[in-house]
Amino acid sequence: MIAASLLLASNIFAQQALQWGAAPAVSPEINADGTVTFRYQNPKAIKVQVTGDFLPPKDVTFNMNGQEMHMQAPGTADLKEKNGIWEYTTDFKVPSEMYNYTFIVDGTNTIDPLNVWVNRDVASLTSVLLVGGGTADNYFIKDVPHGTVSKVWYDSKTAGFDRRLTVYTPAGYETSKTKYPVLYVLHGIGGDEDAWVTQGRAAQILDNLIAQGKAKPMIVVFTNGNISQEAAPLENSTGYNVPTMALPKTMEGTFETAFPEIVNFIDGRYRTIAKKASRAICGLSMGGCHSLYISLNYPDMFNYVGLFSAAIGVSDSSVSPIYQDLDKKLEVLFSKKPALYYIAIGNTDFLYQAKTDYRARLDKAGYPYEYWETDGGHIWRNWRKYLNAYVQKLF
Amino acid sequence: MIAASLLLASNIFAQQALQWGAAPAVSPEINADGTVTFRYQNPKAIKVQVTGDFLPPKDVTFNMNGQEMHMQAPGTADLKEKNGIWEYTTDFKVPSEMYNYTFIVDGTNTIDPLNVWVNRDVASLTSVLLVGGGTADNYFIKDVPHGTVSKVWYDSKTAGFDRRLTVYTPAGYETSKTKYPVLYVLHGIGGDEDAWVTQGRAAQILDNLIAQGKAKPMIVVFTNGNISQEAAPLENSTGYNVPTMALPKTMEGTFETAFPEIVNFIDGRYRTIAKKASRAICGLSMGGCHSLYISLNYPDMFNYVGLFSAAIGVSDSSVSPIYQDLDKKLEVLFSKKPALYYIAIGNTDFLYQAKTDYRARLDKAGYPYEYWETDGGHIWRNWRKYLNAYVQKLF
Repeated sequence: MIAASLLLASNIFAQQALQWGAAPAVSPEINADGTVTFRYQNPKAIKVQVTGDFLPPKDVTFNMNGQEMHMQAPGTADLKEKNGIWEYTTDFKVPSEMYNYTFIVDGTNTIDPLNVWVNRDVASLTSVLLVGGGTADNYFIKDVPHGTVSKVWYDSKTAGFDRRLTVYTPAGYETSKTKYPVLYVLHGIGGDEDAWVTQGRAAQILDNLIAQGKAKPMIVVFTNGNISQEAAPLENSTGYNVPTMALPKTMEGTFETAFPEIVNFIDGRYRTIAKKASRAICGLSMGGCHSLYISLNYPDMFNYVGLFSAAIGVSDSSVSPIYQDLDKKLEVLFSKKPALYYIAIGNTDFLYQAKTDYRARLDKAGYPYEYWETDGGHIWRNWRKYLNAYVQKLF
Repeated sequence: MIAASLLLASNIFAQQALQWGAAPAVSPEINADGTVTFRYQNPKAIKVQVTGDFLPPKDVTFNMNGQEMHMQAPGTADLKEKNGIWEYTTDFKVPSEMYNYTFIVDGTNTIDPLNVWVNRDVASLTSVLLVGGGTADNYFIKDVPHGTVSKVWYDSKTAGFDRRLTVYTPAGYETSKTKYPVLYVLHGIGGDEDAWVTQGRAAQILDNLIAQGKAKPMIVVFTNGNISQEAAPLENSTGYNVPTMALPKTMEGTFETAFPEIVNFIDGRYRTIAKKASRAICGLSMGGCHSLYISLNYPDMFNYVGLFSAAIGVSDSSVSPIYQDLDKKLEVLFSKKPALYYIAIGNTDFLYQAKTDYRARLDKAGYPYEYWETDGGHIWRNWRKYLNAYVQKLF
């Protein structure tokens, strides 16, 4: 009999990582006292640092169209080497949150080879650290009923090809006869239909809030807002295409104009309550801009609108009628009394001023909305929080 | 108006990778002449190599229970540095295939930071190179109707908790009223319900073969054969758990014994043709062992059985009745005349002898089966080929 443990030969790479059964070093390790230890094996490295948003941020200044802009970048900390293993333990309890980090080895960024949890955001891969006991509790898989997450293709007449959506159906969808309300969730520039379920932990947030009775069971549709693209970078018929911010047709109105074809597809495919009272939309950054203009141009489609760190003031009204007549469209939208108009942003977001200008416009006209201002900038940490709050207010 | 390209601030990591809009170096690059170029940016590295299965393999010898075993490991090639960018171009046309590779930087393995396509196999992450124009053509997303790939949870009475499956429903499933045959596809040791759709490209293989009329539309279920585990490593309520070969209860009969609960769940949830004639099973390595014993112990369940590099002779008959009375069970199975009993293996697979012994047993009793022997060893390259061949023979 061959011992099962020797079946490791299944993949030579796997073998190497598993060191033929030897216990590998652990990284990251969440210690009993709430600190976190990072480890990196590399006897030849000269300097190893960890950078991530669990560390106090550094201020970064950059120039944008002649204007000095400020934002915060993740801090760094040095690892110390002993017997070829580099190690760093935080000197503070790491608060509950989902963090991204990488090592900087002799100046070059690398993911943590001991941590298989890697998320892609646009063109970057980073390792993930998830710390429970607070804010991040709803980002964990828990022992609650789980919804189904599907990758679904629809025929986009506008694009001229099939495009991919991620669809969450709540636990019980398949066995009930009920119709469900639908939330559409839109990503930011450089993102795609994967972003909210990987970086955004949206399926876990929904599973947990529904199980806690804090959110209604709902169908959630994560669209791909890059209308020139079939799907996430690895799922295109064009083969390799490196994710880029410079995709054509992301902010020129086509995606927004074509949004009804997605809503019609979803209403045709799923047991939805196909009316405004049971439809919500929200989006982050570019997706906030998209949500803003989709809701304005189709004022009978959504009863709930959520703008998370929205890229307001970015769209060029000359490129599409969808971006024109803002005041007139706002008047129509608010005359129809949406159940919720929700704006959330971090106090160091580089789009803070644009949001302030937009709020002034709403205030001047007396349009009601909810506003939540958090710490921090234009980051996933905030967007997960906003989604977690927003879905509790729906339907 | 703020230029859309400056919205990169959405993530500080993304910004760094995208270099604020500068064109990054490309890696891997498939050149017009069929060679492939790898690039790695790191001015401080002293030695950079690439290792991957696109290179001629090296022979590796290891000792297993006192017996000298041979297998092949991916070769290596040196990158040369110029202005901080390391580069290597193959001196041969790289044949059509899906490859895994990593860089070795001063002795330490690292994924290719310029390639966002990373697959996890057990506990290792490797970069992916997909070359078309031959064998790998069915591994590409093509402009054909796409099936839906869903992550679905079922209540496992045996495990005592919910467990996750990956389910492929063919294009047209949602709009037709038809019932479909079902193929169950099982992973190897250290794998999980993700393996066949990431490393295995199973959804693309099915989409393409069905579109070509070479495979019948079918539902395909990718199980998780580690009965002690809810789901793939990042989708467990236990939070972080590093993938390991040493999971309990993978080869002691529980998964095989409990298999009907999965079949019943699928028959209840999906529009299946719920009978033997329309059910198939196959698996690689440990999943080949599972497929062998599931089909033997439930001889009225599957009309098609596929054993890919199967871990035959590995199971310990003393741990479960499921592994006992092999000859008697084979007699019952073959008396019921399965439509296909299919065995495939590579000629350098370390399980080659075990397969030869098993074939001798079948031959001696006169049981009919199909046999395909390929080049190479216990590797994904072969398992994708076997799946591609096997599904064409079903239903």
